[in-house]
Amino acid sequence: MQQQRPRVGVGMIGYAFMGAAHSQAWRVAPRFFDLPLEPEMTVVAGRDAAKLERAAARLGWRDTETDWRRVVERADVQLVDICAPGDLHAEIAVAALAAGKHVLCEKPLANTVAEAEEMTAAAAAAAENGVLAMVGFTYRRVPAIALARQLVQQGRIGTVRHVRAQYLQDWIADEQAPLSWRLDKDRAGSGALGDIGAHVVDLAQFVTGEQVTGVSGVLRTFVHERPVAAEHSGLNGSAGTGRGPVTVDDAAAFTARLSGGGLATFEATRFAWGRKNAIRLEVNGSAGSLAFDFEDMNVLHYFDATDDALVAGFRRVVVTEPEHPYMAAWWPAGHGLGYEHGFVHQVVDLVQALGAGVQPEPSFADGLAVQRVLDAVGRSSADSSRWTEVATAPLTASPQHATS
Amino acid sequence: MQQQRPRVGVGMIGYAFMGAAHSQAWRVAPRFFDLPLEPEMTVVAGRDAAKLERAAARLGWRDTETDWRRVVERADVQLVDICAPGDLHAEIAVAALAAGKHVLCEKPLANTVAEAEEMTAAAAAAAENGVLAMVGFTYRRVPAIALARQLVQQGRIGTVRHVRAQYLQDWIADEQAPLSWRLDKDRAGSGALGDIGAHVVDLAQFVTGEQVTGVSGVLRTFVHERPVAAEHSGLNGSAGTGRGPVTVDDAAAFTARLSGGGLATFEATRFAWGRKNAIRLEVNGSAGSLAFDFEDMNVLHYFDATDDALVAGFRRVVVTEPEHPYMAAWWPAGHGLGYEHGFVHQVVDLVQALGAGVQPEPSFADGLAVQRVLDAVGRSSADSSRWTEVATAPLTASPQHATS
Amino acid sequence: MQQQRPRVGVGMIGYAFMGAAHSQAWRVAPRFFDLPLEPEMTVVAGRDAAKLERAAARLGWRDTETDWRRVVERADVQLVDICAPGDLHAEIAVAALAAGKHVLCEKPLANTVAEAEEMTAAAAAAAENGVLAMVGFTYRRVPAIALARQLVQQGRIGTVRHVRAQYLQDWIADEQAPLSWRLDKDRAGSGALGDIGAHVVDLAQFVTGEQVTGVSGVLRTFVHERPVAAEHSGLNGSAGTGRGPVTVDDAAAFTARLSGGGLATFEATRFAWGRKNAIRLEVNGSAGSLAFDFEDMNVLHYFDATDDALVAGFRRVVVTEPEHPYMAAWWPAGHGLGYEHGFVHQVVDLVQALGAGVQPEPSFADGLAVQRVLDAVGRSSADSSRWTEVATAPLTASPQHATS
Amino acid sequence: MQQQRPRVGVGMIGYAFMGAAHSQAWRVAPRFFDLPLEPEMTVVAGRDAAKLERAAARLGWRDTETDWRRVVERADVQLVDICAPGDLHAEIAVAALAAGKHVLCEKPLANTVAEAEEMTAAAAAAAENGVLAMVGFTYRRVPAIALARQLVQQGRIGTVRHVRAQYLQDWIADEQAPLSWRLDKDRAGSGALGDIGAHVVDLAQFVTGEQVTGVSGVLRTFVHERPVAAEHSGLNGSAGTGRGPVTVDDAAAFTARLSGGGLATFEATRFAWGRKNAIRLEVNGSAGSLAFDFEDMNVLHYFDATDDALVAGFRRVVVTEPEHPYMAAWWPAGHGLGYEHGFVHQVVDLVQALGAGVQPEPSFADGLAVQRVLDAVGRSSADSSRWTEVATAPLTASPQHATS
Repeated sequence: MQQQRPRVGVGMIGYAFMGAAHSQAWRVAPRFFDLPLEPEMTVVAGRDAAKLERAAARLGWRDTETDWRRVVERADVQLVDICAPGDLHAEIAVAALAAGKHVLCEKPLANTVAEAEEMTAAAAAAAENGVLAMVGFTYRRVPAIALARQLVQQGRIGTVRHVRAQYLQDWIADEQAPLSWRLDKDRAGSGALGDIGAHVVDLAQFVTGEQVTGVSGVLRTFVHERPVAAEHSGLNGSAGTGRGPVTVDDAAAFTARLSGGGLATFEATRFAWGRKNAIRLEVNGSAGSLAFDFEDMNVLHYFDATDDALVAGFRRVVVTEPEHPYMAAWWPAGHGLGYEHGFVHQVVDLVQALGAGVQPEPSFADGLAVQRVLDAVGRSSADSSRWTEVATAPLTASPQHATS
Repeated sequence: MQQQRPRVGVGMIGYAFMGAAHSQAWRVAPRFFDLPLEPEMTVVAGRDAAKLERAAARLGWRDTETDWRRVVERADVQLVDICAPGDLHAEIAVAALAAGKHVLCEKPLANTVAEAEEMTAAAAAAAENGVLAMVGFTYRRVPAIALARQLVQQGRIGTVRHVRAQYLQDWIADEQAPLSWRLDKDRAGSGALGDIGAHVVDLAQFVTGEQVTGVSGVLRTFVHERPVAAEHSGLNGSAGTGRGPVTVDDAAAFTARLSGGGLATFEATRFAWGRKNAIRLEVNGSAGSLAFDFEDMNVLHYFDATDDALVAGFRRVVVTEPEHPYMAAWWPAGHGLGYEHGFVHQVVDLVQALGAGVQPEPSFADGLAVQRVLDAVGRSSADSSRWTEVATAPLTASPQHATS
Repeated sequence: MQQQRPRVGVGMIGYAFMGAAHSQAWRVAPRFFDLPLEPEMTVVAGRDAAKLERAAARLGWRDTETDWRRVVERADVQLVDICAPGDLHAEIAVAALAAGKHVLCEKPLANTVAEAEEMTAAAAAAAENGVLAMVGFTYRRVPAIALARQLVQQGRIGTVRHVRAQYLQDWIADEQAPLSWRLDKDRAGSGALGDIGAHVVDLAQFVTGEQVTGVSGVLRTFVHERPVAAEHSGLNGSAGTGRGPVTVDDAAAFTARLSGGGLATFEATRFAWGRKNAIRLEVNGSAGSLAFDFEDMNVLHYFDATDDALVAGFRRVVVTEPEHPYMAAWWPAGHGLGYEHGFVHQVVDLVQALGAGVQPEPSFADGLAVQRVLDAVGRSSADSSRWTEVATAPLTASPQHATS
Repeated sequence: MQQQRPRVGVGMIGYAFMGAAHSQAWRVAPRFFDLPLEPEMTVVAGRDAAKLERAAARLGWRDTETDWRRVVERADVQLVDICAPGDLHAEIAVAALAAGKHVLCEKPLANTVAEAEEMTAAAAAAAENGVLAMVGFTYRRVPAIALARQLVQQGRIGTVRHVRAQYLQDWIADEQAPLSWRLDKDRAGSGALGDIGAHVVDLAQFVTGEQVTGVSGVLRTFVHERPVAAEHSGLNGSAGTGRGPVTVDDAAAFTARLSGGGLATFEATRFAWGRKNAIRLEVNGSAGSLAFDFEDMNVLHYFDATDDALVAGFRRVVVTEPEHPYMAAWWPAGHGLGYEHGFVHQVVDLVQALGAGVQPEPSFADGLAVQRVLDAVGRSSADSSRWTEVATAPLTASPQHATS
C-alpha cells in the first residue's frame, strides 16, 4: 500500500523557474508512477519571506525557511533539492551531503571546475555512507532522448561517427532585451555555453554513452552592453534605466572528439531568431542515424541502414507508445508529453535509485564531466581555438572514489 | 489570498483514462493559474470498491462512493464531473443539475440526440438558477487551437471557405485487436464517429465560430468480429477467448456545409496505420489559412494572404510564447505542453466561469450541436449518403432557454 | 546504335503550358533513357501563325501547321500529341486514330463521358490495328508515386482501407483574379473537379490498383463573377474591363468506395490559400500506410505495420536512389527531380510501349474511368449528394474491345 | 529573332556526371530563357574515343576531340566548359584563357591554392581583353538559395550573427563501399572538404555577401582502406579485388568568422546515414533568420523578427512563384524544379554576362576565396585546430587585377 512506503522529506532551495518545475515534478510523480519512497514536500527556502510564503502556497510546500542552512539541518529533510543560481551550488551541496542529506542539484553542476570537483569529491565520500547525489539534466528524461540512448545501447546505429548538437534560442536576439543574472558572469558562470550548451554536451554523452575527450572552441559576445532590467522575472525582464555590461558569451561553437573516435560539432546560442528552444541532436553511426529536435519533442527520427534500400528512410517515431521509455505510466498511444514531464521522470528515476540504494544518474561525476568540457571550450577559445584535451578521470585533484 | 477563496467541492464519477486526466487537471490547475474558486477534490465514485480505493489514493480524491447517486446528493459537492461511459451521461447529468450541482460532462455529451436534448434542456433550466453545465471538448484548450480561433475572430483569414478535419488513429487497425466497450454500440453509442469524429466536429465549429448545417456521410465497418478481450484496461486490452461482434463504425467520412457557406470535409478512423492521434484541422479563408496537427501539438501553421508574395508562406508558429493563449501561466518561451494540459485549461476556464457566474463553454447546447451533426451523418449514411440538414436551433423538442 | 532506331514523327497540337511541358519531354527523354524508337519533333499546330512560329522555334519543332487536321494527315507524323483544350480532344483523337496515328492525349480525356466513350471505342478499334492511344496523367510518373504503386503491388500495405486524396491550389483564391478559359464550362468542361480532381482520382486508382465504384459528392462555386481577363497567358492573366460569370465549380469534395471495399475521400480546390500545388495522397492498408505531397515531390512516406513497435514510424523515403522507379537514368542519389520530369517519363513509357507494340498506360479506358468518376460526382452533387454508382465496364454504350 | 543572335561555340571537356549535367543545361537554357547569345554545342573532349562518341551522341555535341588541347585551339569554340577532374582545371583553364576563350570551370576551382591563384591571375589578365571566366557553384542557382541572398541584400534579416552550414551525404558510410577517384588525394585534392564542403562555403559567402576570414578546423578519416573498385562509374562503383588506401578526409568540421563579425559552423561528411544530399544552410541575423535544406530544395524558411509575436514563425516559402528568382521562365506556381535546373540557370547567368560583357559570378576570384578557406581549414586541422586566418585579398602572390 502507498501508506506504508517510507517517506523522503524534501527541502527545496530556490522557487523561481526551476523551483516551479521541480515542485510540479514532486507533486505529480507519485500520481503516475509506483515509487518505492513517498516524497514529502517538506520545506522550501528563499530569501524574501513574503514572496517565499506565496511561492510555498502556490507550489505546495508545507514549510518555509529564509536561510538555506536551516533546510540542510532539519531532521525532517532527507533530500535537498538545489534550484538556486549556480554560484551557490557547491556550498549548498557540500553542506547537505556533509549533513547526510541526499542531493538533487540543478545543472550546471557548478560555475567552475574546481567547485564541481569539490562537489564530486563530496558526493563520492557521501556515497560511501549511502548518501546519494544527482545532477539535474532533465532533457535526458524526454522519452525520445531516452529511446535514442536505448537504440544506441542496442547497437542499432553501430559505431558513432558523428554527433551534431545544437541548442538554439532567441530570447536575447533583440539587442534591447535587458540584462538578467544569466548575463552576469559572477552569477551565471558563463553564458550560452554553461546555460544551454551544458545540456547538449550532456545529451551527446548520454545518448552515445561516450565522453567528449577534446575540443576546439570559440566563444562570442555580440552585444556587449544592455539596458539594466527593471526587475528580474523569469527569463524575460522589462528594461529599467541605464545600461550595464554583458560579461558572458552570447554564443559558443566547438568541434569535439568522442572517446569512441567520433567527430562532433556543438553550438549554443541565444541569438537564433525564430528558434525558441531548439535542442537538436543528430547522431550518425556505422549502421544508422538518429535525429531529435525539442521543438517536436515527442518524435525521434531513426534511420536503419540495414533497411531495404527501396523503402529506407528516416522513420518518424512518435514516442508515445507503451513500449517507449516512461510512456506506459501516462496516457494511451499518441498523447504526447510536454517540457515539464522530464522533471517528473527525473524525480521518478531519483526516488527509484534512492529506494534501491544505487547511484542515480547523472551523477555529480557526470556533471563534472560536462563542466570539464565547458571549461576546455573556454580555454580553447582563449587560446586561439587550439585543440584542448578534456580531463576524463573522475577526479584529478582529490582522492578518487568510485561513484557508481 | 488563496486561503480566502470560496471552495468548490468536486465529485468525480469514473476513474479510468478520463478520470485520471481530469484528476490531474483538478490537482494542477490551481498551481499555475489564479482561480476565483478553490477546487476541492472531495469524492470519486465507481462500482468496484477495491479498485476505487486505490484510484482515489492514486488520483488524490478524499472520499469514495460506490453509487454515483450519493455523489450527487452530497452537500460538500458543488460540481459533478462525469467521466463515466456515454450511456450514463444523461441520467447523471440531469440528476446532478436537478440537485443544484454544476456539471462537467465528458464528451460526447450523450449517445443519442434525444438524451443530449434532454440534458441541454436540463442545463438551460438549471442555468436560470445559476447552476452551470459544460461539456468536455478539451482539444479546444490546446493553445494552438485556441490561437486558431482567436485568429479567425480577428478576421485574419477572412471568410471561411474550406475546412478539412481528420482524426486518424490506428489502435484497432490490427484485425486481431480485441473488442472493447468502445466497439459496443450499446455502451459507446457509435464508433469512430462519436468517439473521435465528435472532437473534430467540435473543433471545426469552435475554430470557425460557425455551425455545420448539413452533411452527406458514410460510415464503414471493416472488421465485423473480433476476439473478446480478456480484460478492459485503457484503450488496449489483451485478447481472451472467443469472438464477438463489432457493432459500431470503424470509420466515418462526410462532407458538410458550414453556416457561413464554407465547404468542409471530415474523416474519423481508427484504421490509419502509423497515425497515433492525428487530429488535423485545416481552414482556408478568403484572406489566409490555418493548419494544425495534434501530432505536433505546440505548433499552428498560418498563411497570411496579404504577405508580400516574395516571402509568403505558411508560418510555423511555435505556440509557446507568453502572448499565446494559456501560455503565460506556464514555462518560458519554447517549452511546450502535452496532451494533459488541455484538461488543466478546461478546469481553469470552467472555474473562472463559475466564479464569474457566466456560462462556461462549450455548453451542453454546443455538445448537442455536435451530437446533431453526428446523428445527421448516421442518418445520411443510412439513406444513401443523401444530403441531410442538421437542426441548428438550440432545442427543438422542448421549451427554449437562452443558455448564454 | 541510336542512329538505326526507327523514328516516330510527332505532331503536337497546342503549344501553351502543356505544349511546353510536352516539348521539353520529347527533347529530353532520349538524352537520358534508351528508347526503342527515336522521337522526331516533326510539327506543331496552332491557330495564330505568328505566335506559332515563335513557339515552334522556342520549343524545338521543325514545322508548323495552323490547322490541326493537316497534322493528322501528314505522312511524316506517326503520333499525335494533343495539348489543346478539352473540348477539342475527342474530335482530334478520333480523327488521328482513324488516320492510323498513335495518340497521346492530355487529361482530362474529354469534357463529357460521351466523348470519352467515343474516344475509348476509337482507341479499342485502333488497337486492333496496332495503333495505340494513351492519356496523359503525368503525376503517375513522379518517382515517389510510381514507388507507391510498386509497394502496394508488393503487398506491403495489405488490403487498402482508406484513401484520402486532395489537390489544393490557391490561384483563384483572390476574388479579383480574372476569368480564364479554365473557368468557362464550355471550354473546360468543369472546374476544379475536372482540372485537378481528375489527377487525384487517377492517382488513387493507379496507386491502389482499384477502381472508384461509387461516390457521394458536392460541388461548390464561391465566386460567381470575376473580372474579364485582358489576355490569357498561362494560369494567371491580368484583369481587363468588365466582369463575366464563372460557370464551373471552384471546389469539389466527395466520398467514395473503392472496388476492394476501401473508403476514400477526395477534395479538389483552387481556394486553399498558401497551397500552391498540394497533391496529397494518403493510403492506409491492413499492413501499412503511404503518404505523399507534391509540395515535397521527391519524398514518399511509408509506414510498415510489421516494424518493431519500438522504432515504428513513417519512413521519409527520399526517392532518389537508383533502386527507385526511373531514377537510375538520372543523377546520383539525393539529386531530386522536378515537375517536368513526369512528362519525360511519360514519353519514355509511351515510346517503350510503342516499341514493344503493347498498350501504353494509362489507356483511354483509364481516362474514361476517371471521367466516369467525375461525372458521377457531378450527378451526385446535383442530386442531393446521393450515393451514385460509377460504371466500371470499359465501355457501356458501344461494342466492347479489349484494350490491354 | 533567335536566328540573328550571335552564336557562342561551346567546347566541353569531360562527359561524366558533370558533363551530363552541363550538357542538359546547354540544351535546355535557350528553350526557356531569352539569351543574348545562342549557345552552340560544338565539341566535347575525352580520352576514350569509343565512349566519347557515344557520349557526344547521347548528350548532343556535334564534334568530338580526344585531346582537350584541340578544343582550346578550335576557332569555332568561344567558350571552354571544364568538367574534368580537379587536377586538370588549372592547366586547361589557363590555356583556354590564354587562347582567348571564355571559361566555365567546375568547382572546386583547383586542387591547390597555388593553382587557384594562377587561374585567378590568368582570369584577371584575360578580363582586360574581355575574355571572361566563371566557376561553377551551381547551388547558388537553386531559386530558394538565390532568394535567400536577395532577402539578405534587402536587409530583411539585418546583421548576420550566425551561419550553420552542413553538407551531409551517406554514399561511403558503408565501409565496404569501394575506392573511387574522389577518395584519391592526387586526383581529388581533398575529400569531403573540397568535394562538398566547398559548396557550403561558397553558399555561405554567397548568401551572406560576406567572406570567411578565419577558421578552426578538424579533418577526419574514418575508413582508411577500402576495396578497389572494379570500375569507376558515377559516384558508386562495384567492388573489385584487393584493397587500397583512402588518402582524403571522410569528414570535415570547422568553426569560422565572417567578415561582418558573425560566427559560423561548417560540416561536410559522406558518413551521415540517411542523408542523401542534405545541403543545409541556416542564417540568423539581427532581424530575422533563413533556413534551407536541399532535400526540400524548392522551399526556403524565413523568420521575420518584426512580425507580430502572436503569429511569428518560420515561413515555409514555396519558391515557385513568378516573383521568385528564375521562376517566371518555368512553370506555373507550385511546380517545383529539380537538381539539374541549377545548371540551366548557370548557363543563363553566364551567357547573359557574356552578352553584356560583364564579369559573371562566381568569378575565379570567388572560387579562389573558397579554395583559401578550404586550405586554411586543412592547415588549421594539421596545427591542432589553431585559429587560422584566411587570406582575403583577391591575389596575394601575383599582380593584382580588378576582376569585376
